[in-house]
Amino acid sequence: MKAFSRQSINPCIIATQYAVRGKLVLEANEIQKEIEEARKKGKNNPYPFEKVVYCNIGNPQICNQQPLTYPRQIISIVEYPELLNHTTLFPKDVITHAKKIINSLGCTGTSGAYTNSMGVIQFRKSICKFIKHRDGTAPSPDDVFITDGASTGIKMILNMLISHPLHGIMIPIPQYPLYSASISQFGGFQINYFLDESKKWSTDMTSVRKVYEQAVEKGIQVKGFVCINPGNPTGQVLTVQNMKEIIEFCYEKKICLLADEVYQENIYGEIPFTSFRKVLKSMRDEVKNSVELISFFSVSKGFYGECGKRGGYFQIENINSFARSQMYKIASTNLCSNVVGQEMVEIICNPPKEGDESYPKYMNEKMSILNSLKRKAKLLYSVLNECEGISCNEAMGALYLFPKITFPNKYIDECKRKDQKPDELYCLRMLKSIGVCVVPGSGFGQKDNTYHFRIAILPPENEIQNIAVKIKTFHTSFMKDYCH
Amino acid sequence: MKAFSRQSINPCIIATQYAVRGKLVLEANEIQKEIEEARKKGKNNPYPFEKVVYCNIGNPQICNQQPLTYPRQIISIVEYPELLNHTTLFPKDVITHAKKIINSLGCTGTSGAYTNSMGVIQFRKSICKFIKHRDGTAPSPDDVFITDGASTGIKMILNMLISHPLHGIMIPIPQYPLYSASISQFGGFQINYFLDESKKWSTDMTSVRKVYEQAVEKGIQVKGFVCINPGNPTGQVLTVQNMKEIIEFCYEKKICLLADEVYQENIYGEIPFTSFRKVLKSMRDEVKNSVELISFFSVSKGFYGECGKRGGYFQIENINSFARSQMYKIASTNLCSNVVGQEMVEIICNPPKEGDESYPKYMNEKMSILNSLKRKAKLLYSVLNECEGISCNEAMGALYLFPKITFPNKYIDECKRKDQKPDELYCLRMLKSIGVCVVPGSGFGQKDNTYHFRIAILPPENEIQNIAVKIKTFHTSFMKDYCH
Repeated sequence: MKAFSRQSINPCIIATQYAVRGKLVLEANEIQKEIEEARKKGKNNPYPFEKVVYCNIGNPQICNQQPLTYPRQIISIVEYPELLNHTTLFPKDVITHAKKIINSLGCTGTSGAYTNSMGVIQFRKSICKFIKHRDGTAPSPDDVFITDGASTGIKMILNMLISHPLHGIMIPIPQYPLYSASISQFGGFQINYFLDESKKWSTDMTSVRKVYEQAVEKGIQVKGFVCINPGNPTGQVLTVQNMKEIIEFCYEKKICLLADEVYQENIYGEIPFTSFRKVLKSMRDEVKNSVELISFFSVSKGFYGECGKRGGYFQIENINSFARSQMYKIASTNLCSNVVGQEMVEIICNPPKEGDESYPKYMNEKMSILNSLKRKAKLLYSVLNECEGISCNEAMGALYLFPKITFPNKYIDECKRKDQKPDELYCLRMLKSIGVCVVPGSGFGQKDNTYHFRIAILPPENEIQNIAVKIKTFHTSFMKDYCH
Repeated sequence: MKAFSRQSINPCIIATQYAVRGKLVLEANEIQKEIEEARKKGKNNPYPFEKVVYCNIGNPQICNQQPLTYPRQIISIVEYPELLNHTTLFPKDVITHAKKIINSLGCTGTSGAYTNSMGVIQFRKSICKFIKHRDGTAPSPDDVFITDGASTGIKMILNMLISHPLHGIMIPIPQYPLYSASISQFGGFQINYFLDESKKWSTDMTSVRKVYEQAVEKGIQVKGFVCINPGNPTGQVLTVQNMKEIIEFCYEKKICLLADEVYQENIYGEIPFTSFRKVLKSMRDEVKNSVELISFFSVSKGFYGECGKRGGYFQIENINSFARSQMYKIASTNLCSNVVGQEMVEIICNPPKEGDESYPKYMNEKMSILNSLKRKAKLLYSVLNECEGISCNEAMGALYLFPKITFPNKYIDECKRKDQKPDELYCLRMLKSIGVCVVPGSGFGQKDNTYHFRIAILPPENEIQNIAVKIKTFHTSFMKDYCH
């Protein structure tokens, strides 16, 4: 038997599922290819739309969101410092910031060298200032690891926690499938707790305690509790009260809290974002000084949306020094995260200040992106709720809506006969009829016999109205087919 | 027990060792810090040298190797396309190439979006052309995965092969410790085969067959065979004959061949680099069409030395489509590798051609780096061989020398009493007396009762003579202490 035969490949890898780039997206790519080939050959477009609109993923810049000028100018200079001789090309603060970054990159000032495995120390210090500004207190730069996006850090931490099929990680349902995929890849046990759709997707502590007890009864050792706030795919923003309950639970059960806070700057509703770190610091001493907390950040989301840079960090609280040295060791087997991504993290955490030459432009770009996201979230929310059989919580944060569809029984029966998942088939039909690519709820997890899809709110404003109308028309026609 | 207590962390992670950034380097960092702090405080330098010279790692740009101008100019433009309006700043071919890259990055032309999880298709096509130029035949872009440096790809492949403590991977001794570290991290079984120091570190097929048989007797299922060519830390370049023997062995035993060829452009001796792919293609049909081969490439080495970019690729041969779809899935859980790194891979594989405006400068930079590396390799080789008790093979390729030291018995006895590894203690003394940081042979593996260290040939030419003299003086004095 060959090493890469189906029977020989690591079964944990085979069992891993990752819907965000899965079946539906591959189908969307095929359709897009067919359309382009037809166009090239002068043939008729086989589909009733001009192009696929990708609403499957939080990838803002593929949807025409423009990169912020300030960080790109700095990175451009750091890549080619010869540009420093052309000072009229750039605002003064850009030049100062670029020089500072160059000076941070060791004696040679180049982005082409491996850095410290945790990331450049001066960059980690900027992150600490950013956190201090957010939380009121600063962590130590020794507790910050810069990573290739948040995903790499999350995987590293899960890999450290899981070494046995009975090691359990609690994840929200619905969840971002990186978690289920990584738990599966490392051969751990996935414990699903439920977010309460009827209460704006808040964390249902009754469900948390119940599934914990069930897991313990099965002999599972529960090691991690994943919380995504603001929520992906659900868009909820947790209240401080809810966060305190979660922290108390982790304290009581000695579980490490993994706080996925990559959408912390995407807030559209009335509840502000509060970091788990800040809430933890406000609690009584024995909790504050005990709960192991790891918070993840990324430059891919927020108003910057620099997904391609693969920049992120995680920051640890109450992790002992032995464990930290193990984290350092594992980070060091990859040598370091990519330096341009590190720079991007630094710049996002250290933006222009009032009075700086770039400040007005930076704020203008930032606010216009955030305001546009807010408008798009509200528009899609309204239109979706107008659809018969669809109900949708508003997006209080993040980049997605996660509407629930109540399918006609006739359709459910048809899916059973065809042995297909109702939400998957629905999304596939939507893709083929109107060219909008969304992800079926089953990719994120959902309560039995409920069906959802995730739609990113990222397409440009001049398209989103059109997309909303198309979805409504598609859905109305779909329902007609099965209800009458 | 807390999740990150010593008893709770994944024991495979704890067992992982990674010397290249290990104990000695941390010590070196401390020393460097002490020197700098003494300087700041106006105190006497506690060490008899001005700064630590890092010869522990293949990190060219930290040793003042300048980045190539051509790729940096292109990346700079792609980051900030506004620069296209200042055409006098850049050579014409740079502008053309930058525009081509921008056009490859989807409709929005930005490096800030996630790409295909395997990397941008046009970049993979450039890689295929590069391989065709090297091997005479082109692979399919569907068989190329762009990765964050070679390390990420290597880890991904090992993770796919290993799912049980009895899954074995054969690695050369000495080896680059990423292999032992990853096998340990994924909980597999490491099978050591030996390179023959007396035969210029060629692969000793007798040893290969012997350790294979021993492993099989223990119930090990051998899945992968790692070959590093040009060698790290040994600097050997394999003959085509030796490579054929290795391929025949993998064919016979149905083992996947992992060819770490990241130093393919670092050649200093008479044996040219030949890729495993090219040799495989020259063999009889049943071998050619059967042996699973994965070749790794990186932008961190060669004459480009862009370590901080974390760019690389792996290219697969004879891997079935199911296995490839699994690779795609795992790659997609990280979404994509960093886009600037992807661009760097593309540019390195698609350099300026004769007649292009940048060609003379590019060739001049390239040749001056490669010639300098060659001179430095020869210089260190000569001086090391002049030392009593040191013998060293020449570096036919890569970026290192791996001299053998025959220690006096008195020293060996002393180490036994102190329960210290002789090579580790020797390297620590070298660091403390002359500030040169090298890595003990035990970090790479070596035959019992032989001792080595790895020294990178990267310090600038104006320093290397001085470093060589210092090492010789240190070694002479060390030997005197124990021999007389």
